Amino acid sequence: MSLRKGVRVLTPNGAIAPTGTWSVGARAGDFLFIAGMRGINPANNSLVDGDEARIRQAFLNMKMIAGSEGADLPDCVRLTVFVTDMQRLRTVVNKIQEELWSGGPYPPRTIVEVAALNQDDFFEVEGTFYSPKSR
Amino acid sequence: MSLRKGVRVLTPNGAIAPTGTWSVGARAGDFLFIAGMRGINPANNSLVDGDEARIRQAFLNMKMIAGSEGADLPDCVRLTVFVTDMQRLRTVVNKIQEELWSGGPYPPRTIVEVAALNQDDFFEVEGTFYSPKSR
Amino acid sequence: MSLRKGVRVLTPNGAIAPTGTWSVGARAGDFLFIAGMRGINPANNSLVDGDEARIRQAFLNMKMIAGSEGADLPDCVRLTVFVTDMQRLRTVVNKIQEELWSGGPYPPRTIVEVAALNQDDFFEVEGTFYSPKSR
Repeated sequence: MSLRKGVRVLTPNGAIAPTGTWSVGARAGDFLFIAGMRGINPANNSLVDGDEARIRQAFLNMKMIAGSEGADLPDCVRLTVFVTDMQRLRTVVNKIQEELWSGGPYPPRTIVEVAALNQDDFFEVEGTFYSPKSR
Repeated sequence: MSLRKGVRVLTPNGAIAPTGTWSVGARAGDFLFIAGMRGINPANNSLVDGDEARIRQAFLNMKMIAGSEGADLPDCVRLTVFVTDMQRLRTVVNKIQEELWSGGPYPPRTIVEVAALNQDDFFEVEGTFYSPKSR
Repeated sequence: MSLRKGVRVLTPNGAIAPTGTWSVGARAGDFLFIAGMRGINPANNSLVDGDEARIRQAFLNMKMIAGSEGADLPDCVRLTVFVTDMQRLRTVVNKIQEELWSGGPYPPRTIVEVAALNQDDFFEVEGTFYSPKSR
């Protein structure tokens, strides 16, 4: 965890390893900003197979990083979801979120179909969380 | 409106009905996070016809949700706009924003052309607002 | 700089000129929201030639606007990067960020390939910064 002028870059144990010029998350004030997460298994840094399993892994990667700063999925205030096939994947995303959020309530979400993701992946989720330091 | 550890999920009367695992908005601290809004008429939950009318409706849906927490369009701090045809729709977005923001000033905006949106729609806007509780 | 109910629209000298219904940035509380920046030279408002030069210019445009409110690149808490060719441009983005962030640490980043950007451009970056007023 690096200290900068108020911004704290997050480097929790067990998170996936950044493969480029990015960190997995940052805290500023009471908010946590998590990098776009894909379904990479942090144990071996390789993509998980299968639509459901890969999407679940991406959400779990996000949850793990938020958890390192005291936030859980209900503390999420914004999800932006990028898929490469809306038709096939939106229902899968809904199913996995039902499971992980235990039926809700759910955070505000935006879901769009993009042309491509890194490593020709099909799912990426960007999450913002609220985790007041004084609570 | 559900109470969670500091995050308040917004469920204003008259807003569109979420059709999946998402809420229309959330408050955390002084910020409001509104889900990606499309041009759905909340009266019948169906898409409005016509480029201008549909885009206007999407912005009005966003405005309505922000309004339920004391914010209006000038309190918007970030707009991310997703269209499926930049050439055709960017000028329409500009026109509708001129109308709704009464000539400005306008919030920072990012506009990108994506491959597809839910329901084969052509416009979606994600907005973040500032609405200090103490003001 | 316009005063609104708590939101301050940023209009720094030397920033690119908005060509539509948007501002280059806004401050709300301790956060700065910068509009999606492309590699436009603010001196003549035209696109810079070349992958590296254009991407560098976009980041510098963002940095300049954040700088007008006391923030520098290490104060960035979220980057969302939109490219039109992941294969060709992701490595260039990494290279330019290494240069501008002096080897890191880096902010959380999400990078996606979209169908198109305004003016048929190939790179746009949206940044959020933390710049506490009381520090």
